[in-house]
This record gives sequence, C-alpha cells and structure tokens, in this order.
Amino acid sequence: MTLLAKSAQGKGGPDAIFAYSDMANKRAAEIGRENITNATIGAFLDEKGKVLTLKAVEESMRGLDFSDSVTYAPLKGMPRFIEAVIDATFGDYRPQGYISAIASPGGTGAIHNAFYNYLNRGEVCITTDYCWGNYRTMLREMDCTLETFRTFKDEHFDVESCLAKAGEVAQKQQNVFMLLNTPAHNPTGFSVTDEEWDEVIKGLKAINQNGKNNVVLLVDIAYIDFAGKDARRFMQKFSDLPENFLTLFTFSLSKGYTLYGYRLGALVAVSSSAEVIAEFDKATAASSRATWSNCSKAAMMVMCDFADHAEKMAAFKAQQEALSQNLKQRAEIFVNEAKACGLVTLPYQSGFFLMVPTDTVEIAQEAARLLREEDIFLVPLGKGLRVALCAIVEEKITGLAERINEALKKAQAK
Amino acid sequence: MTLLAKSAQGKGGPDAIFAYSDMANKRAAEIGRENITNATIGAFLDEKGKVLTLKAVEESMRGLDFSDSVTYAPLKGMPRFIEAVIDATFGDYRPQGYISAIASPGGTGAIHNAFYNYLNRGEVCITTDYCWGNYRTMLREMDCTLETFRTFKDEHFDVESCLAKAGEVAQKQQNVFMLLNTPAHNPTGFSVTDEEWDEVIKGLKAINQNGKNNVVLLVDIAYIDFAGKDARRFMQKFSDLPENFLTLFTFSLSKGYTLYGYRLGALVAVSSSAEVIAEFDKATAASSRATWSNCSKAAMMVMCDFADHAEKMAAFKAQQEALSQNLKQRAEIFVNEAKACGLVTLPYQSGFFLMVPTDTVEIAQEAARLLREEDIFLVPLGKGLRVALCAIVEEKITGLAERINEALKKAQAK
Repeated sequence: MTLLAKSAQGKGGPDAIFAYSDMANKRAAEIGRENITNATIGAFLDEKGKVLTLKAVEESMRGLDFSDSVTYAPLKGMPRFIEAVIDATFGDYRPQGYISAIASPGGTGAIHNAFYNYLNRGEVCITTDYCWGNYRTMLREMDCTLETFRTFKDEHFDVESCLAKAGEVAQKQQNVFMLLNTPAHNPTGFSVTDEEWDEVIKGLKAINQNGKNNVVLLVDIAYIDFAGKDARRFMQKFSDLPENFLTLFTFSLSKGYTLYGYRLGALVAVSSSAEVIAEFDKATAASSRATWSNCSKAAMMVMCDFADHAEKMAAFKAQQEALSQNLKQRAEIFVNEAKACGLVTLPYQSGFFLMVPTDTVEIAQEAARLLREEDIFLVPLGKGLRVALCAIVEEKITGLAERINEALKKAQAK
Repeated sequence: MTLLAKSAQGKGGPDAIFAYSDMANKRAAEIGRENITNATIGAFLDEKGKVLTLKAVEESMRGLDFSDSVTYAPLKGMPRFIEAVIDATFGDYRPQGYISAIASPGGTGAIHNAFYNYLNRGEVCITTDYCWGNYRTMLREMDCTLETFRTFKDEHFDVESCLAKAGEVAQKQQNVFMLLNTPAHNPTGFSVTDEEWDEVIKGLKAINQNGKNNVVLLVDIAYIDFAGKDARRFMQKFSDLPENFLTLFTFSLSKGYTLYGYRLGALVAVSSSAEVIAEFDKATAASSRATWSNCSKAAMMVMCDFADHAEKMAAFKAQQEALSQNLKQRAEIFVNEAKACGLVTLPYQSGFFLMVPTDTVEIAQEAARLLREEDIFLVPLGKGLRVALCAIVEEKITGLAERINEALKKAQAK
C-alpha cells in the first residue's frame, strides 16, 4: 500500500555522503575525535571539529534588534539585501545588462527556482560528470533529468565535450539549460578559466542564434569566496549577450559568510532584455511564495549591516580572506605531498574539496574501506575519492596523500 | 518573448494583502504611524508597530553557541527538535498510532511537502471557501487546483457541505486531500468543534472504506497557540484510523514562538500504518533535500533548549499564554462593540484575524476605500473585510467596529 503521489514514489533513501559521515562520527564516539581523520564533511572546521565562523558575522548577528530580526522579510528579500547580494556576486566585474536577484533558502533554494521556472517537465539540464549529487535529486523532484558531459580533457575543462552536449540538447528542447559549478568546483576544486569561458559563451551564442533555441546558463558560485581575487573576472563576459541568453548565478551565504544553517542565498539574473528580467522577477518571486514563502530576515540584516557600515564590511572582508588563506594552506600541503609521492588528483585550483580519481567505482570503495581501517574517512564518489580539505586541519592533512596512495595501490592490486 | 517554462508563465504578480499593507505604510510615512489604524498585517504587533516577541525565545536565541547554530541541521531536523515538535503539536492529546515529523521552512514549507507528495498533477485539494489565498498559489505551482466548499451554515462549520465536496472529489481521484485551517482559522477565527470533528472523521472514514479512496487530511494549526487550552483536544480523535487515512499537521514556529522570519516549522504525520509513516519520512525528507536542503538550525536549537530545560520551558509557556490573553482582550473589545452596534461578523472564536462579511465583493472594496479616507486600513478579501486584530492595540480597536459599520452602510447604499 502507498498513499504517495505517483511522482513521489521510489524517491529518497540513504545519502552516500551522510552514510560515510555517520561512520566517521560513530568511530569518533568510540576512540575520540582527535584520533580519527574525518574528511567527509562539507563545512570549514577547526581542529576541534567545530565550524570556523567569522567574528564580524557573529558580532553583527548578536547586535541585531531581535524584534526586527524575527519579522517576515519581503518575498523577494529586503531591497538593501538584494543590492548587497548583487554587489557581492559581481564585485568589480558587474556585467552590462539588466540585473535582478530574488532571495532563497541557501544556494539549494536558488537552484530549485532556476530549475522550476526554466525547465519543462521531462527536460534535461546538463552539467559536468563530476558534480554535486543533489542536482540530480532536485531535478528528479520536478520530473526532469540531469545529463552530463566529460569534465576534463587532459588537465583542462573539456569545452568541446560541453558544447557538443549543449548542441545535442538543442535538438530536443527549446531551452538549453547548462549548469556549471565554478569557480572552486564541488567536488574537484577546478575552475573554468577566462579563456575557456570565452569558448563556452561563443559556442552557446552560436546555439541561441539559430532562431530556435534559448540558452539558460546557471553558474553555481557557492565556493567563490575561496577562489582568489580574480575569481569574478569572468562575470563581465555576460555583458550584452543576446536577449534569449539568460545568465543566472546562485549566491549563497553558507560558506562565504559561514552561515550554513541560517539558510540564505539568492538567485541572481543577468540579461540584455528588461522583459526577460521582469518575467524572472515575477516567476521566481511567485515560486518562493508558493514553496517557502520568505527567507531568513536575520541573515539578510547581517548583509545589510555590512553594506551600511564600511568598517564592518572591511573587518568581514579581512576575516573572510584569512579563512580563504587558511584553506589555501591546507590544500597546498596536500597537493605538494601528492606530487611528491606520485598520487594523481583531478585538477584542483581552490575550494572545499579535491578528488582522487580511480579506474573503477569498486577501487574507490575498496580504498575508502582500507582507509577506514586506519581511521581515515573519505567519501567514495563514483570513480574517485572525495577529500574534504575544509574539514581537516593541517596536522591531519600532513601525510594524508601518502596514506591514500598506499590504500589505492592495495585496492588496485586486489 | 519568454524564456520561462510553460507552467511558469502567467503566474505571480501583485498580492492584494501586500498592496493594502503598502497603502497603509505610505500613509503612515505621511502622517505618522500613530495617526493611522493599520489592521492589514498578519503579525502580532505592539503600539509602536513592532513585533511582540517572547523574552524566553530571545534569551535562548542569544544564548546559543554561535558556531553550533550556524552548522547545517540534519535534513529531517535535529532528532531532539523533532521530538519537541511532536510534543508541542499534540500536548496532552497525542493520538495513538505511528507519528513522525520532518522540518520545513515555516508552515508554508510543510504545506508544500504535503501537497507535493500526496497530490498527482491535475488533482484537487479541498478547503473552506474562506481561506488563506496562498494555498491556491502553492497548488498552482504544482499544476494542482484548490476547490472550496461553504465554510459556514448558520453560525457553524458546514460539515454537510464539507463532506459533500469530499464525496465529489472521491469520484475523480484516489487521494481525497482535505485541508482544514483550524483552530483559529485564517481569516475568520472560527474553530471546528469536537462534535463537528467527529462528524467529519466519520464521513471521511466512510469514504476511505469504499475500497477505492485514500484520505489525506492536512490540518493547518499555524494559530493553535492562540486558541485556548482545549485547542488540542480534537487531536486524540486521529487514533486508530484506517491505514489509508493519513492525518498531517503543519507545525509552525512563526506565531506561537514569535519567530516568523526565522522560517521554521514541520510537517507532522499520524497513521495506524508503520509503512505509511515510513514512506512519509522518506518522501518528505527527499522533497526537503530537493527543494531547500535543510532548515534553520538556530530556531531548532531554541526549541531543543526549551525541551531540555524545564524552567526555560515554563517561562516560555507563561509568556506565550500572556500573549494569547493579550490577543483575547483585543478580540473581546471588537466583538462586544460589534454586537452593540449591530455589525455582523463571521463566527470568531480566536486567532489573529476576524472577518466582516459583505453581500458583494464590490461592497467590501468600497467599504475598505471609505475606511482608508478615515486612515483605517483593512484588507477586502472577496466578500468581506479582514480585520487583523493581531496588528492593532486595544486603543485603536476601541471604536473600530462602529466605524466599519458606518462605512459598510455607506458602501451598501451606493
């Protein structure tokens, strides 16, 4: 017997990442957190396994007028928050065109609104074959599917494979919907370079000038604040594109503002067409109203507080930069040691995660199992092991590449 | 030109309630908030137009470990939070059966998950003809529709009309999905009585024992903490119902915990079938993951804090009761004065709103216009005026019934 609607049947169930994270937590309870290496978690942690937070964010949050902070925010988000989101998204590289943004619960909510409003049922979104698994879950919820293209060719983003896939989808549906998680891609840490962006945009323009297709490009920038000072330079390339080329960005306060659990983000839109932006506003706000109503006022007020007080903004930026440098140090240890011992990783530039590729799914799982015997916890994701650099401090990273390398050799030999 | 998906076209646009609220705010900016009566807003306000908050909630929030409060909560919600939600939902009247709950962003998110998982596309949810307009918006977002039955017969809930509509829907779709916003219904303030619940449940059981239909009954209890001490007594009636009768409750921290803008609630399920509750858990958690991911950890921690500390819980309960009494006083003034001057209202027992019915939509709008000329702001909703008792203090309520009565007479005479 089931009472579920047809499309709700058969979905859900255990999540691989949570399952591996649970194993780590169980072991930590047995022998102490300090005696294991838990590189399964997608949050930036200190040596005690606590989330690293920004002092400026905490102080701003604690300074809010409580009565104000508990009221409903406007559906679209507080106007000052929306301005602040647009500033934070583009920095010095704001593209020419009409720009708008609508608040959402985290980056996930923003992606939901993008999928819902720009894909018909049964249609396809395309992204890299190494990708965040939840994109698939989200599309399934609206009877759409994820199709992937090869992420890398040699050491670089595979532009050819990306555009070939876009061309294939263009034959089947009007909106060619492409999602790119860059810079600091989850789970590999690669970033599309400015030159690669030029080629991608050129290829997509060719598609949407065929008189038939539109392009909807969704750039997931969840990790952008850990990708260095030039991370936003590519954004100016979305200036003056054709009217039927809509660029969307998912803005999130989870990582860059260390407000993961406050659930605030926004979907940001850029278009040469005022009409396309007006319909984006209307449809996206209606989705918000119809799905979660409004979003965290307290987190919005923190962003407004920074926007209104230069000294608070400066402190926040400095602390955010320090956090980003801390992650960079962790990554450098791992990357250098991997090179030294001959451990191959996928091209990593920045971000919370790094991937060690394997020849098969089975090797990845066996290597993860062997590492668990040494109290090292990583998540096997398809043909590879995901290392959450964000979750482990320098001391635990030192020597990790070599131990992964040994485990891989054993797993391959089996 | 449009880039929107087909089902996203034509939705959205201005909201009547926000539009009237904007008019009030504009006027307040001109002549001062203290010189207008703004009864348009669905939040409990003090004489300065600030949201009334509970001290125990504020203290708990301020006492949270910041680093803990910013982490991601589990998808389903923190286990202690889920227990606390179930306790808070049922109080002393927990029904027999399997019970579960999944966190959501406010009551809206809970309703979303209920609609999505228990209605096929094109199907119908039924509710009272006086109802919260957003139910319709939410159903439209998933290609479903709202159909209504007559709310009142004489001074009482129209059980006959309710069950006739349920029977009609049973002919067309397998899941008879009924939504009742009670106690302290928005926008009228009525509550289904225990005797009326007996009749409704009996009628729905007759439908789901026909070997063909299931019943999904969604009870929206957003305002229950303002409905008096017996408000939960009806909940025990959902004990030992047939396996294909699923009862859902939308729990919300917005009003009862004065955490409107923190966006936390839960969808609570009761069933005689372990299997039905297991599939509820799986499908609802998957929807959460696929739509907004996880929910406000900080607000969850406040509920856990109360659950873990009897003295904090006692303080919270006492403050919540005082707030409820304050609303009751406001309502008594209005109801007594309405009786004295002969102004007819729909049956009000408790809650944030009260409705003054009109013969036509036009009379409601004209009366609202005339009242605006006197700097009194109410929202005309269909054939009636909605008075937000929650938004205006005693001083502004005194005399209001008579002024509405005068405006109505003028509008009718036109």
